[in-house]
Formats: sequence, structure tokens, C-alpha cells
Amino acid sequence: MAESINITSLNKEILAGSKVALAKGITLIESNKAEHRAMADELINSILPYSGKSLRIGITGVPGVGKSTFIEALGLDLIEKHNKKVAVLAIDPSSSISGGSILGDKTRMNILSQKQEAFIRPSPSRGFLGGVANHTRESIVLCEAAGFEYVLVETVGVGQSEIAVASMVDVFVLLMLPGAGDELQGIKRGIMEMADIVIINKAEGALLDKAKEAAKNYQMALHFFPEKNNKWITRVVLASALKREGIDKTISTLEKFRTENTDNGSIQTTRIHQNLSSFNQFVQGMVGLVIQEQKALFELKNELESKIKIGEINPYDAASILVNKLKAIIKIT
Amino acid sequence: MAESINITSLNKEILAGSKVALAKGITLIESNKAEHRAMADELINSILPYSGKSLRIGITGVPGVGKSTFIEALGLDLIEKHNKKVAVLAIDPSSSISGGSILGDKTRMNILSQKQEAFIRPSPSRGFLGGVANHTRESIVLCEAAGFEYVLVETVGVGQSEIAVASMVDVFVLLMLPGAGDELQGIKRGIMEMADIVIINKAEGALLDKAKEAAKNYQMALHFFPEKNNKWITRVVLASALKREGIDKTISTLEKFRTENTDNGSIQTTRIHQNLSSFNQFVQGMVGLVIQEQKALFELKNELESKIKIGEINPYDAASILVNKLKAIIKIT
Repeated sequence: MAESINITSLNKEILAGSKVALAKGITLIESNKAEHRAMADELINSILPYSGKSLRIGITGVPGVGKSTFIEALGLDLIEKHNKKVAVLAIDPSSSISGGSILGDKTRMNILSQKQEAFIRPSPSRGFLGGVANHTRESIVLCEAAGFEYVLVETVGVGQSEIAVASMVDVFVLLMLPGAGDELQGIKRGIMEMADIVIINKAEGALLDKAKEAAKNYQMALHFFPEKNNKWITRVVLASALKREGIDKTISTLEKFRTENTDNGSIQTTRIHQNLSSFNQFVQGMVGLVIQEQKALFELKNELESKIKIGEINPYDAASILVNKLKAIIKIT
Repeated sequence: MAESINITSLNKEILAGSKVALAKGITLIESNKAEHRAMADELINSILPYSGKSLRIGITGVPGVGKSTFIEALGLDLIEKHNKKVAVLAIDPSSSISGGSILGDKTRMNILSQKQEAFIRPSPSRGFLGGVANHTRESIVLCEAAGFEYVLVETVGVGQSEIAVASMVDVFVLLMLPGAGDELQGIKRGIMEMADIVIINKAEGALLDKAKEAAKNYQMALHFFPEKNNKWITRVVLASALKREGIDKTISTLEKFRTENTDNGSIQTTRIHQNLSSFNQFVQGMVGLVIQEQKALFELKNELESKIKIGEINPYDAASILVNKLKAIIKIT
């Protein structure tokens, strides 16, 4: 990336809805270089007042459940029937080792990606989950400023990534397969609890009866979950992404969620909590810099690392010693 | 848990191989209470000199691949044919919301769990992944001190949990199904790259031919991966956990891995790096305490949080301001 990025014009282009500028802005956010971080920060600050207007939707489900097909169907309906703009971001913790699936990325969301009203950004190619989560949070802000009214955040994998996504969206959609056992679907109670809308996908042909049964079972299981803070009762929706059925119902349920939870203020509250948690993550991440810059701390850290290497001290004790040293050299306030 | 835990006697009982004491020690480690943490720290320090002697094995694979059956078969063979002691720990990031699968935990590893030479610990019921990972790392240490010669760390879920497990084991085993597509198995290139041994499970009956074909394909795919630092070439093993076939081959491959990578020093190097990374995680986690204890920082943090709440500042800027304040009040060293 050229070093001479004009943030003022990038800001203007993004606000004008340029997808090229939006992509450039996200690349800047995802960069690990310090000078890019400063520019990214400037960009986000200038963009922030124009953000917050989308419905931020997290979408999860095991591989094979049809996430891409479902997102494509949902995106196309929002664009074609509701005249909206749709952004799709992906979060993929496993890509922190090396990007892409083993057989190479298939062309995904082929029709949606050709729409002028759609912006699709593949998963960031590196970075630990905390970092990825913060980047995605900021990417959402840019998408909103560029006029995207729905931001879909897709998770890849089952487990920790859902928790990261839940920390940045307004509503959490869980895709399930009819008939497959819970175990095969890797669905833990914790993930079910997080869901605001459960979609039974592939409710089509021979699977339709099984899907209906699954819907009934999940509906029943949901009764046993603790009440959510916002009082929202998780809805179960039958869908066939392939046949583009059940997408209308999904959209009306999303809108019902938005209306109820805007009226009672819970979407706003959730976003505030998300920002506070993001703040704390940033603080933790920045502490390495403080240690790096202080000679006494830096030397102590090196010394402790040497001791860890020869097994003379355990990591927890070493950390305590370093943090105590930090406390000791702080002026009393 | 009673507050009057005698760490000296707990230490002795663990070293004597008591599974009750071991379980108690792990519960202490997993506790979030400050006074428990101090005791856990004392326990780990007293135990550390007796640890490090096991082969630490990470085992992963999507739900439905037969992980429990495979671990049970592997554990039973190690005990019955090799006269060894086997501990099984689980790491499950999704349980940080609420524990257990939606239909309740089935009785898992029924035969293995009844063996005197086996210790099975279900996944920690709470805590964020970083915390869980540190707890599991310390639990491994206790298992080793209690005389368990193989510590199997099982991951639940696909994605971030593998990365956490890889940060605490010597050798990484990936279970795959014959015939199922890569996509359905949620196997990303990154996870494949992490594997030291790939097991094609369910190589039995009608699936045997498919399993052989899958083995050939994975063997070929592995050629395209970058060479590992330790020069180990990932092995593919056919197995049927159900019929307890291929377990011998798995064990001999594990031993081959252990011998080669002990001789070339890479297991030792890996463990050192794992400890250093654990140290850095602890340091990051402890910084909150520093801020909490310093009036000026604590007040500034509250003020910044108020501004975040009303959208007056973004989380990244707020974090920068707080960390800069921390820098400013450090005495020049």
C-alpha cells in the first residue's frame, strides 16, 4: 500500500459510497504497520459520526449448513425486494495460521458479488482473534458510512468465533440442518443461547418433514433457556436458501427484532457494552508497548524470559514480577 | 471449595498419584477467586519440578468424526498393551457462555473412565479462551506430576480452539472422516498445516475404500505444505476407533514423533516458546489490576468509559489516551 494515502479524500469517497474506497479503507484497518494504524485511526475518527445506522447481523453455523447460499439469498432479497445495500464481512479465526481452505476458495456468492448494491469482503488473512475482531468492528463502521444498511458478519468455524462475532453485532442468526444430530452440527448449548433467530436451512424436498420436526424440537428446547436481557424470544424459521424460500420470513423476523430492540433501547445498550469491551481489549494490547519503551521493564522482561527458558520460573510468577515492577515505578497518584 | 486447602498435602497426594487430589488441584486452578489463584500458584510452583515428562498430545476433528471413541481406544491400548497412565483433558471455547451440549453430556469414554490408570477431566465450564488455555496448560503440569505419561488434550469445535491447543501440546493429531468433503469437515488449510499426524477414522466396512482414497489424497495434499521447523513430515494413518484398528500404528507414529523431536531438541524448544507466550498472555491479563489500583488511571478510565458510552470517543483512541497516561506517570528509568 502506498504510504501517501489521503485520508480526507478516502473519507469523502467512502461517504459517497465508493466500494473501491471502502475496500481500501478496510485494507488500511487490517494492516499491522504502525504508520497505517495511525492513518486508520484518523479515518475511523472522521467516519465515526456517519456510522451506526445499519442492522449488524451475525450469521453462524457449521460448514456444510449452506451459509454462503443463505447469505447470498438474504442479500439478494434485501437488494431486489427491499431496495437496500448489503455488506458481507467474514471472520475466520483459523485463518490466523494461513488463509484459505485447503482446496482453494471456491467462488462464493457469485450472483450477489456482481450486484452494485453489495459489498463482499473475504475474511482477514491474518491476525489473532482479538485483533481480527477489532478490525471487523471497525470495518462495520466503514461499511455503514458507505451507506450499507445491512452488514452481515459471517463466522467460519464453530466455537470461539461466534463469541467474537456476538461482540460486534446487533442480532445473531444460527443456521441449522434438518435431521443432523446436535453433535454432528457441533452446536453447544452456549451457541444456541446466543442465537436470536434459528434458521433451519435446507427445508426442501425429502428433508422438509425432518426440518419441520427439527423446528418443533428447537422451539421446545429454546423454552428451557434463560430469558434474554432484552426479553426477545428466539424465533425458529424454516428456510431453503437454495430455493430462496423462508427468506421473506427471515427478513420480517430481523425487522421485528430491530423494531422491538430499538424501542426498548437494548440495541443501543448492547453497542455501548461492545465498545467498552473493545476499549479494554485495546488497552491490554497496548501494554506491550509500554514495557518495550521503559528500559527497566524491558530489561526485567528479558531477564524473566531467560529464566523461563531454563525452567527457573513459571510464566505466571514471571508475569507477576514484571507487573509488580510496573506498579513500583509508577508515581504515586 | 473450602478455604482451608493444605497445599503441602495436596502436593504430596498428587505426587503420590491420587486422582481425587489431582481433580481437586485442577478445580483450584480453574477457580476465578483471587485467594484460590494464590493457592493454585503455590501448588503449581511446588509441582513444577516434577512435571514435563509426558507426551502432550492435542487431538482435534469436527463433531461426529469419532473423537471420543478414538481417544477411548487410544487410551485403552496405552493402558492395556503398554502399561501406561493416560490423562484426558478437554478444551472447549464455546462453553465460556454456558457449559455442556444442548442435550446434556452423554456418558463419554465409558470404559476408559473406569480404568484406574485413566484420568478424564471434562472441559472447564467457563472462562474466556485465553484463560481456559492457561488453565489447561497448568492442568497438564499437574497430570504429569501425578504420573500420567500421556496427556491427551481434546478440542471441541473448529477454529480458534485448535490454535489454543497447539500452544500447549507437543504433537497435534487431526481426525478426519473418509469421504466427507473438506468443507463439511470444516478443515481449513491452517488446521491441516498444524497437524503432525492425520488419522482417517472410520476406515471400516463400506467406508474402507473411501478411507484409503482419502489417505492418498491427504498424503498428496500434505506435500504442498511448507516444511515444518522440526523437519517432521506429517503422517497419515488409517484407523477404526470403533474396531480398535490402526491404534497400534497411531501409537508407534506418536513414539516416532517423540523420539525424533526429542533427539533434535524441538519438543524442548516448542515448550519454551509455549511458556514465553503464556508469560506474555499473563502480563496482558494483569494490567487491568495496575489500572484498578492507581487512582489517576482509574479515574481517567472511568471518564473515558463515560465518553465511549455517549459516543464522544472511539474505543481505540480512548485506549491510547489511557495507555499514554500510564506511560506519563512512570518514573523515567
